[in-house]
Amino acid sequence: MSRIERAVEKLGLQLPPTPKPVASYVPAIQTGHYVHTSGQLPIVNGKMVATGIVGKDVTLEQGQEAAQACVLNALAAIRSVIVDLEEISQIVKMTVFIASAPDFSQQPEVANGASHLLEKVFGDKGSHARSAVGCSSLPRNAPVEVELTVEIHERVEFDK
Amino acid sequence: MSRIERAVEKLGLQLPPTPKPVASYVPAIQTGHYVHTSGQLPIVNGKMVATGIVGKDVTLEQGQEAAQACVLNALAAIRSVIVDLEEISQIVKMTVFIASAPDFSQQPEVANGASHLLEKVFGDKGSHARSAVGCSSLPRNAPVEVELTVEIHERVEFDK
Amino acid sequence: MSRIERAVEKLGLQLPPTPKPVASYVPAIQTGHYVHTSGQLPIVNGKMVATGIVGKDVTLEQGQEAAQACVLNALAAIRSVIVDLEEISQIVKMTVFIASAPDFSQQPEVANGASHLLEKVFGDKGSHARSAVGCSSLPRNAPVEVELTVEIHERVEFDK
Repeated sequence: MSRIERAVEKLGLQLPPTPKPVASYVPAIQTGHYVHTSGQLPIVNGKMVATGIVGKDVTLEQGQEAAQACVLNALAAIRSVIVDLEEISQIVKMTVFIASAPDFSQQPEVANGASHLLEKVFGDKGSHARSAVGCSSLPRNAPVEVELTVEIHERVEFDK
Repeated sequence: MSRIERAVEKLGLQLPPTPKPVASYVPAIQTGHYVHTSGQLPIVNGKMVATGIVGKDVTLEQGQEAAQACVLNALAAIRSVIVDLEEISQIVKMTVFIASAPDFSQQPEVANGASHLLEKVFGDKGSHARSAVGCSSLPRNAPVEVELTVEIHERVEFDK
Repeated sequence: MSRIERAVEKLGLQLPPTPKPVASYVPAIQTGHYVHTSGQLPIVNGKMVATGIVGKDVTLEQGQEAAQACVLNALAAIRSVIVDLEEISQIVKMTVFIASAPDFSQQPEVANGASHLLEKVFGDKGSHARSAVGCSSLPRNAPVEVELTVEIHERVEFDK
């Protein structure tokens, strides 16, 4: 188990199993010094942790937990294309999409559930640029969807 | 005609003409080993293929066709900055924005219209990371908007 | 004062002070030849320039001004991680998130407030790929949120 995975477990959390690639898109892709994940939903043990619109069907606290679950899935997605999460030299960018009613404005608080986890697990390397925006709805009625871009030490050579 | 354009035509589809740059933003931009497109709308022969909210004004099937039309426009945008689509070594990331009512949750099915086309045209190089999210509305009442990031063999040197 | 800052001032505008990093995410991050900003809100002198949904609570013109204010904050965020905005060799990508009612379709017009400013300040280097999408709501009831990716001359070495 890598240092990063131990850091996750010390928080009482667990990285989910490496996701299986679906048909035409993949959980994550490496290009050069970067890995980009697909948008990750808050699925734990095959089940969405909550469904619906944050601030209406889903509380702020549930939204924060959902954001955290999305990040764990994003890390599992990244692990599916690199050897060890320790290869991550910097979390670069996180976009947090939050299913929101028109009068909901606490997207940053929801997204903090995700940002704080990255900070705790990665320390300085976990600092990231972030956008949090309200969506009318999300896949499978998920309350939150998260995508990550991370920088890694070892680059993949470009096809020649 | 390049191999990629032939692959598109074999599917009974056609790459639209290279888009004209507008005032201050451009259809696509190359930087280093990457091309990023602007968000592309499902315009075919100058006309939006459908308008409105998917799941309300626009059926799932129409949404999938719209997503496919967006991808063709994205490929045309990329072709406006590189010599040949064959230079694409990997489709990296696709974001599919879908105009959605609050109770619509089939964004992945809509986005599959776009993902499947990339897979058919590019094969293994067409595998990509993907986010699909619901928007309250989109430019010109488009039901779908797609942006692509692709990796290319030849890098552009950075300004010195 | 750098040439870029002078160009901003000639337009009667002003770059805001460099933002302070918040807890676990940062205003902007540099990786390799790129700087990515966090999503920037239209805050001027500590106050949101307008709040609510564009086309409903906020006029198109106010939305355009808000988009411009977001860009100034994005440039200030970039300046917090590089020495001089003159180091920017190309504005690469801008995403403009616009709080929109389901029947609002003028996201491009709102986003032009941001694009035109980049063009005026950066000239050819200000051409960028752009996506503009409608969000159900945005943080702190902001009408607009903008994120930027820019290319810079000097690359940061990857951690080894």
